[in-house]
Amino acid sequence: METHSTAVAFGGTQTVHTHASKVCGCDMTFAVYMPPQAKAGPVPVLWYLSGLTCNHTNVMDKGEYRAHAAKYGVAIICPDTSPRGDNVPDDDGNWQFGSGAGFYLDATAEPWRKNYNMYSYITQELPELVAKNFTVDMKRQGVFGHSMGGHGALTIALKNPDTFKSCSAFAPIAQPTTADWSAGAFAKYLGDNPELWAEYDATLLIENGRRFSEFLVDQGDADSFLDDGLRPWLLKDACEKADIPLTLRMQPGYDHSYFFVSTFMEDHIKWHAERL
Amino acid sequence: METHSTAVAFGGTQTVHTHASKVCGCDMTFAVYMPPQAKAGPVPVLWYLSGLTCNHTNVMDKGEYRAHAAKYGVAIICPDTSPRGDNVPDDDGNWQFGSGAGFYLDATAEPWRKNYNMYSYITQELPELVAKNFTVDMKRQGVFGHSMGGHGALTIALKNPDTFKSCSAFAPIAQPTTADWSAGAFAKYLGDNPELWAEYDATLLIENGRRFSEFLVDQGDADSFLDDGLRPWLLKDACEKADIPLTLRMQPGYDHSYFFVSTFMEDHIKWHAERL
Repeated sequence: METHSTAVAFGGTQTVHTHASKVCGCDMTFAVYMPPQAKAGPVPVLWYLSGLTCNHTNVMDKGEYRAHAAKYGVAIICPDTSPRGDNVPDDDGNWQFGSGAGFYLDATAEPWRKNYNMYSYITQELPELVAKNFTVDMKRQGVFGHSMGGHGALTIALKNPDTFKSCSAFAPIAQPTTADWSAGAFAKYLGDNPELWAEYDATLLIENGRRFSEFLVDQGDADSFLDDGLRPWLLKDACEKADIPLTLRMQPGYDHSYFFVSTFMEDHIKWHAERL
Repeated sequence: METHSTAVAFGGTQTVHTHASKVCGCDMTFAVYMPPQAKAGPVPVLWYLSGLTCNHTNVMDKGEYRAHAAKYGVAIICPDTSPRGDNVPDDDGNWQFGSGAGFYLDATAEPWRKNYNMYSYITQELPELVAKNFTVDMKRQGVFGHSMGGHGALTIALKNPDTFKSCSAFAPIAQPTTADWSAGAFAKYLGDNPELWAEYDATLLIENGRRFSEFLVDQGDADSFLDDGLRPWLLKDACEKADIPLTLRMQPGYDHSYFFVSTFMEDHIKWHAERL
């Protein structure tokens, strides 16, 4: 693991690292914020999964998480959203597939299956690396994310309820198998296999019996992707039928940007810290 | 004045605007955050002046000011750092002069004098535009900034103590007339005229009799520009001799980046709000 940059912030340390990923077949870059409490011993870990087109820098620059991570004493890990590089197949010009659009799944179709394995990367390979290199308590992990990363957080929590103690999302894609901006990617990554698609869809996972302790979801009501891409009411229906407590807050006037995410960042970090 | 973008954040509104500037002879872009309190009536105005290479976006993305502006009820105005455009002379590849390096002065030398008039822009033209278009109380103005913008804040406050009620700075260039990264620009903008140079140098302005009520300055002790460019001890000496109260805080481990600025942003906004 190579460390690119280190900066003190809010009494803790913001760093950026690159490592050779086996499951993605390329070098992967991620950002880590360690709060000041880590100087005294292991701290809980909160995974932030970013949205379409993002890499680790978007939330590092605009997410405003460090103040609250320092206040509540949690480490924040910000991975990339896909494999990248000259040897990784891509679909140039398509922002909803390929680079920046890994959808937190393990691809099964050619030529994507060799590299596009973000589910295994986030749930297995990167946690092992983080556990080995940082002062973290891996028994206290939470996951949250934005948009495509909200989908990632919800599905990863539902499939790994013993690993992740808490889950929240900003404007998540509630049902990616049928949403405008994700169904096309699912078809390419996973082929014509509806059962496999359902393994990466929060609403369908719940309908098919997966459970999680509770969710917090914030959603701007002025979000231009609300009706076609996000549709939190589908998640709400599924949670109600499954008796999963869901705190869904429609935030008046907010759009899909990091102006929205940063506004509610403290609420989410506090929510996780109370449960970790 | 044209409005490019509007987003709700922390209950207030972050907008970006462009207007035709007379004193800069080009279109100029600036960002405005209006806190929720502005819905009830005029709020104080806090001018944030950015550093070398920046435009309005750097602090808008990374400064983390909105949470605190909303909490303390102040508007934050973030101007550009120089004129820009095809018709504006520039010195390509020089990050310490020309585009992104206006140094908050009015140039007197050719060919720069037609456009590089950031002092008049920040103290006259832009305040008139802001007063006309936003719910602000121009009797309650403060100014702060980072690096070159810290120099701008200090010099503008010292020359306009009746307009600005409060002033603070993050890692300011304390004596730009003799600092490595600014003396060259002063020579080009102002020619071989030491008396004119002194009009844009905080330390020399104080030595030459200008006064201000008090300053707050934060400076990282791991800032790589500390010894050659910033030198806060020169400002400290001048303030002590002139009986100007200066709160100079050396922050251990912090560098020159927005990780440093954002960490102490709340302290500064609170400092201004208490004085406005």
